[in-house]
Amino acid sequence: MMLTLADCGELELIARLRPYCHRELMGDDAAVLSLPLGEQLIVSTDVLVEGVHFSLGMTDTPVTMTPQDVGWRSLAANLSDLAAMGALPLGLTVGLAAPRNCPVAMIESIYQGMATCAQAYGTSIVGGDTCRSSVLSLSITVLGSAPPERIIYRDRAQVGDVIVVTGVHGASRAGLECLLSPQWASTVPAALQQAWIQAHQRPRPRLDIVHWLRQQVPPLRLAGIDSSDGLAAAVLQICQASGVGAVLWADQIPIVDDGDHQQALNWALYGGEDFELVLCLSPELAQDLCTAAGDRAAIVGEIIPEKRVHLKLNGELLPVQVNQLFQHF
Amino acid sequence: MMLTLADCGELELIARLRPYCHRELMGDDAAVLSLPLGEQLIVSTDVLVEGVHFSLGMTDTPVTMTPQDVGWRSLAANLSDLAAMGALPLGLTVGLAAPRNCPVAMIESIYQGMATCAQAYGTSIVGGDTCRSSVLSLSITVLGSAPPERIIYRDRAQVGDVIVVTGVHGASRAGLECLLSPQWASTVPAALQQAWIQAHQRPRPRLDIVHWLRQQVPPLRLAGIDSSDGLAAAVLQICQASGVGAVLWADQIPIVDDGDHQQALNWALYGGEDFELVLCLSPELAQDLCTAAGDRAAIVGEIIPEKRVHLKLNGELLPVQVNQLFQHF
Repeated sequence: MMLTLADCGELELIARLRPYCHRELMGDDAAVLSLPLGEQLIVSTDVLVEGVHFSLGMTDTPVTMTPQDVGWRSLAANLSDLAAMGALPLGLTVGLAAPRNCPVAMIESIYQGMATCAQAYGTSIVGGDTCRSSVLSLSITVLGSAPPERIIYRDRAQVGDVIVVTGVHGASRAGLECLLSPQWASTVPAALQQAWIQAHQRPRPRLDIVHWLRQQVPPLRLAGIDSSDGLAAAVLQICQASGVGAVLWADQIPIVDDGDHQQALNWALYGGEDFELVLCLSPELAQDLCTAAGDRAAIVGEIIPEKRVHLKLNGELLPVQVNQLFQHF
Repeated sequence: MMLTLADCGELELIARLRPYCHRELMGDDAAVLSLPLGEQLIVSTDVLVEGVHFSLGMTDTPVTMTPQDVGWRSLAANLSDLAAMGALPLGLTVGLAAPRNCPVAMIESIYQGMATCAQAYGTSIVGGDTCRSSVLSLSITVLGSAPPERIIYRDRAQVGDVIVVTGVHGASRAGLECLLSPQWASTVPAALQQAWIQAHQRPRPRLDIVHWLRQQVPPLRLAGIDSSDGLAAAVLQICQASGVGAVLWADQIPIVDDGDHQQALNWALYGGEDFELVLCLSPELAQDLCTAAGDRAAIVGEIIPEKRVHLKLNGELLPVQVNQLFQHF
């Protein structure tokens, strides 16, 4: 018989989830953490709802991930927000709401996925809460820190900066397509399929870039954000916050090789959930950053005074617009 | 026509909620906060679900609060966790999930209640997330700080300590009874009714005690917790964590004066949500603490070596048990 939350109760559930959490920090009214001397606290919260942000078969949405993937991916998205601020993680809390008929094994698997991701990036679950609801949801709050002079804000882009992306864009969207359309997937080489599905199910927050940036003396002047909402939205948000514009060079954007260039470019611009960093900095420093970020990193455009974002494609300047941005309701 | 979240969209909702949040800290991937020099970070997360922890008429549960009350009370419960750790607040994040048919005005009122409570205790909303769900829920993460030597843990109670409660217990439960049973309420003087309903709808986290404790040199040796789950559960949890037992003196517990002594005592022990502090410390220091905490604060028992919790009532020792503790599923 499958054990559900109703059979198990909250005390038993918490006992089962404890192995996935930092042992010494659990068990009081709150967790106690130490910040590295002189660093500031960076905090970000994401809410993820079954049937909206992920699917485990409790609603009509097609299932494209295991519960472990859901745990990994939910936390990776949050850690990516820390990376976008130039911060390294201190710990995280998880607020779980779940239906009474939810299998306990599913919840354990989600926590296992989160714990695996946390461990991979040198952090852990330090607290949280569990409660009953009619829908499964996770609210993750990540805590990180950074020296004040190394925090990355999105409003610091300057005219003359170039735009660097730390890796390929559109891979997560391509991975989703492989999972939703097996027929389409059958036209794609197996190794590519696997890489894209991995990008979708197990995205990697670019905390390695933060480690590299910490070693640069003096600190680089940067503006930045992550590309969780797609490359177009990332550049639009930097430009809006900085009071500038940008030209994106279509032929320089690292896209997936799916045999349909237009589709791949659309996925890169609007697909989202690649969790790469989009950074604006002076051209002289950009090449070093690309080298550090890996072989798909690239300089993909420049910051201009005119407050618009254009895509330069085959010699033409096309406007970039994101009408449906953030319409989560 | 009533504006719902579906009419409004996420961008518009966020713009409407912005006035209730810390202006300068919003708008990047994460919020940046500073800790007082040498202090540690204290973090606690609570999840609150409509129809489970509060009711605004979207489920069958009777409505006993306005949306503003729900906001105040949800945050107050979280701030009480900080007080129980000896911490003062730095800021909080709010993860909101809400149905598309939810009135925007209701959400604004909840945030207004949270912002009012935050302001009353010298803090503010510094970040968060909003998204669609089929049920209304709030996930609040409070961030606080304390000097390491002033953090209050629950596992530090010692045999010979007395148990202090910082105020009356059972008032929140009595307030709920007034709201659910107007007939019963009609037998209670209006001033008492009002005070109890206030205790239920607008509980006050005891951060004033933390301020007083900060002034004590050297720091008091304390064990402590808040009484969110009732006085009995609070004492049981301290005893369990500290490997000791306790005797609670029934005639010393500050209870509500509702004309039914047995019921008032039950509400004090098991009613919960009074959000007072329950502190264990040496008898010599306890009286000063009571004086600082107010005229309903009292010494209500003592810590004993035998690992059981007893209630001393009319000369008899009765066992205190909390079977249904934490059964939230």
